[in-house]
Amino acid sequence: MTSGWVQKTKLSIPSLKDNTADTDRLIQGLKPLLGTDNIAVDLGLMKALPDILRTADYHIRCILFKDGGRWGVSGILPANDPAPILGMAVDLGTTRVVLRIVDLTDGRHLAESSFDNPQLAIGPDILTRIHHADTPDGQTYLQNLIVTGLNEQTALLCAACGYSITDIYQMAIAGNTAMTHLFMGLDPRWIIREPYIPVVNRPGTHQASRLGLQLNPNARVFIFPNIGSYFGGDLIAGILYAGLDQQEETAILVDVGTNAEVVLGNKNWMIACAGAAGPALEGGAASMGMMAGPGVIDRVVIDPKTHHLDIHTIADLLPVGICGSGLIDLAAQLFLCGMLDIRGKFASAACGNRLKDIDGLKHFVVADMSEAAVDHDLSISQADIDSLIRSKAAMYTILETLTASVGMAPRDLTRFYVAGTFGSFINPVSAISIGMIPDLPLNCYHTLGNSSLGGATRFLESRDLFEEIDRIQGSITYLELNVNQDFMNRFSAAKFLPHTNPSLFPSVKIPG
Amino acid sequence: MTSGWVQKTKLSIPSLKDNTADTDRLIQGLKPLLGTDNIAVDLGLMKALPDILRTADYHIRCILFKDGGRWGVSGILPANDPAPILGMAVDLGTTRVVLRIVDLTDGRHLAESSFDNPQLAIGPDILTRIHHADTPDGQTYLQNLIVTGLNEQTALLCAACGYSITDIYQMAIAGNTAMTHLFMGLDPRWIIREPYIPVVNRPGTHQASRLGLQLNPNARVFIFPNIGSYFGGDLIAGILYAGLDQQEETAILVDVGTNAEVVLGNKNWMIACAGAAGPALEGGAASMGMMAGPGVIDRVVIDPKTHHLDIHTIADLLPVGICGSGLIDLAAQLFLCGMLDIRGKFASAACGNRLKDIDGLKHFVVADMSEAAVDHDLSISQADIDSLIRSKAAMYTILETLTASVGMAPRDLTRFYVAGTFGSFINPVSAISIGMIPDLPLNCYHTLGNSSLGGATRFLESRDLFEEIDRIQGSITYLELNVNQDFMNRFSAAKFLPHTNPSLFPSVKIPG
Repeated sequence: MTSGWVQKTKLSIPSLKDNTADTDRLIQGLKPLLGTDNIAVDLGLMKALPDILRTADYHIRCILFKDGGRWGVSGILPANDPAPILGMAVDLGTTRVVLRIVDLTDGRHLAESSFDNPQLAIGPDILTRIHHADTPDGQTYLQNLIVTGLNEQTALLCAACGYSITDIYQMAIAGNTAMTHLFMGLDPRWIIREPYIPVVNRPGTHQASRLGLQLNPNARVFIFPNIGSYFGGDLIAGILYAGLDQQEETAILVDVGTNAEVVLGNKNWMIACAGAAGPALEGGAASMGMMAGPGVIDRVVIDPKTHHLDIHTIADLLPVGICGSGLIDLAAQLFLCGMLDIRGKFASAACGNRLKDIDGLKHFVVADMSEAAVDHDLSISQADIDSLIRSKAAMYTILETLTASVGMAPRDLTRFYVAGTFGSFINPVSAISIGMIPDLPLNCYHTLGNSSLGGATRFLESRDLFEEIDRIQGSITYLELNVNQDFMNRFSAAKFLPHTNPSLFPSVKIPG
Repeated sequence: MTSGWVQKTKLSIPSLKDNTADTDRLIQGLKPLLGTDNIAVDLGLMKALPDILRTADYHIRCILFKDGGRWGVSGILPANDPAPILGMAVDLGTTRVVLRIVDLTDGRHLAESSFDNPQLAIGPDILTRIHHADTPDGQTYLQNLIVTGLNEQTALLCAACGYSITDIYQMAIAGNTAMTHLFMGLDPRWIIREPYIPVVNRPGTHQASRLGLQLNPNARVFIFPNIGSYFGGDLIAGILYAGLDQQEETAILVDVGTNAEVVLGNKNWMIACAGAAGPALEGGAASMGMMAGPGVIDRVVIDPKTHHLDIHTIADLLPVGICGSGLIDLAAQLFLCGMLDIRGKFASAACGNRLKDIDGLKHFVVADMSEAAVDHDLSISQADIDSLIRSKAAMYTILETLTASVGMAPRDLTRFYVAGTFGSFINPVSAISIGMIPDLPLNCYHTLGNSSLGGATRFLESRDLFEEIDRIQGSITYLELNVNQDFMNRFSAAKFLPHTNPSLFPSVKIPG
């Protein structure tokens, strides 16, 4: 049974024999509920308190927050005031930001929206933004972009649902370490420079107004902690959402993307690492690659006999490109049909007339102009495949290195969480076929969807998770891959399809 | 041995094997010194931290604060940076505000200044200001007056001493409950309405910027707690300064003024009360009364045989008026020479030609026009004496009621602290002679000077007093005189000189 952030209470009525001040009376009223009288009351709220208490006849709803283990009160309403009391969960993605309104009284999810991170104007990747932060006023500009975006989109979502931004008393934000820094106005330059030191690991709770956020004037913002430059609050939120830290069974949680972040553990221990998997996994780097969207190829099936390509596009439109999960499907199908060899090279004979030479580089035509919604053939180059293979090899190597560090092998895993929106779309059979993820029974795989948003939402659903998040942050051992000697050896072995050691992937029927 | 607010420390140097973030590294470095890692770091400071740490080679001085039992860091300087680290102690008086700059590194008192409370423009007394706060924008106006005054005078004092306002990292403010409310922008209306409820008893620690104060951007302000509408932070500061709460011996502390505030106790218990003593004690209400200043009569001796008045003025100028301590001296001397009877009425024969009738009211000429720096006789009326007697009776009755509540009598006291600047000027022999204070051996009396400023200063001298102040606030039992039945009976008996029961004042030789 968890307790929410909103607490009803009836205070004693002041008298000549009980002339405790309003604020201290409020604290005394909350003491039996919170087990302490060390409770902060916001200065802004203190100003409003005399009127509220007398209007409410001392029968009130209090909105709580927690800061460094200390309870605080950020809002008070008369008990019979039906005004909504809301929280906002935020997945602060590098590319996309997702907002979800949560009712702080009962944890209901009330509304959701998402928007492109306005920092995309500076650059799609974090590195470009961190370098931009080093230019004059660059850091302030980047902070303003995201804060303004959050304010505008929060106002829009509230307006669409008939809420006021002042109904929002708490925000929970989960993002990677760099995004968290750029949002808070902290200098990100040392994140990308050896020895990779963030400004802060546990940002904690802040006044929304001090961060430039336009919510209730007394609102608080909880920012998920990170455990290093490359393992951010989005992952901590994911662990919280998956409940990895609560389970007896050792499980692994993988966030697949440009950066692959992985955590392995159970209720007793957790070990994590992160490494660049390359943009190929998200489809960003392939010549016909793009983000998922209408007309984008997301699934491919190739008939092993006829080599006919059955392609599926989002919204069943004529194809315009291919997304990451489509590319993984395509590579897997090409390999299983003998059209890619174990080194990931196009097999000329098997590919037949789909293979074209453009500027001296082999291209495989996925859809020719006549079958596509664009004015050229949609093709994938050998370089695209090479890039994908490096990415999948990096991914597998990260998993192998992490499990090896605790004396396990990837195939010993029995529970495999795939976090992140992109991860949800990957067909595990295809990912196994190319040797990107271990050859586990399919029921071991669990997709979590947006686990960063999920974790931020959980924080708003219960006031009891503060310590758990702190514990997660404190109990993770971070394995620095940059200093790991075995990594490059393992990486070389993983650059084959599915692997130099096919016995690791018994379910994959290697052709020929 | 107390510890200061500034703490030197050398942090470990980051490496690939120790990639703790800057903020968390700072916290880890302070943990052995503070015994906890629950340490808040100000957002503003977090932003500056990466540069400071790297410039300082991780060898730093940290400026601490405490908020609700939680340590925090409001400033960091390289260890070899000679910049001053200052605190500002403030006695937030209704009439006069006193500032004192304290060196937070070693507790030295560096500079002091005082200024008239700018709220005097609204009214000299708190009641007028509280009523003004009820008018449109009145409360904001009053807050702006005092905050602007503090900012201007702080800047002037700093400039005069070659400091910058940004050198000030901590302010400690002690004022009465109403002034504290007006300063914080809290509605004071319920302070003066039954059952006399302040908005807050323990205001605690706040960001200076949120209170409108222009100090270091991350500076914190500690506001002394009160224990009711009529027993303010100035008194709590006075108790701290006198060390009343640390002593085995039961002692009394009296702040004499328009309002008389009294606390009785020792290390085990404290009981307090406050009551209107009337403006007569401060000289404000007498026809020739005024605040202490050049030419103001502060001491009077009357020759019992010749009835010649030997008057002393501040700066030895021709007299312009009389201050509170001068008035007490005058009344005592008149009484001891038989020129005032035990009811406090002028004895016509003994007063001789110094007694004049003006508008049907008897006046005693203290200095005639020829001896004075004004163009009229300086005289004191029967009404002035009556007013003084009501005030002294109120004062004594408060002392009697408070001691009686713990089974003591005023004469059982062995240690009597007189707090407040005004109190320092009172001649205890005179005050005993008119029965204002109990007839104790003179070595029982200890004047504290500005104990409100003294307590605020002590807070800045040591980081160990936070809990002691909390304990003082929590351990005082407040006796509400407004509901005390014995009070009026005692008051009537005390309206004689020195008392209806002269055996209470054996040292006073009653004439005639």
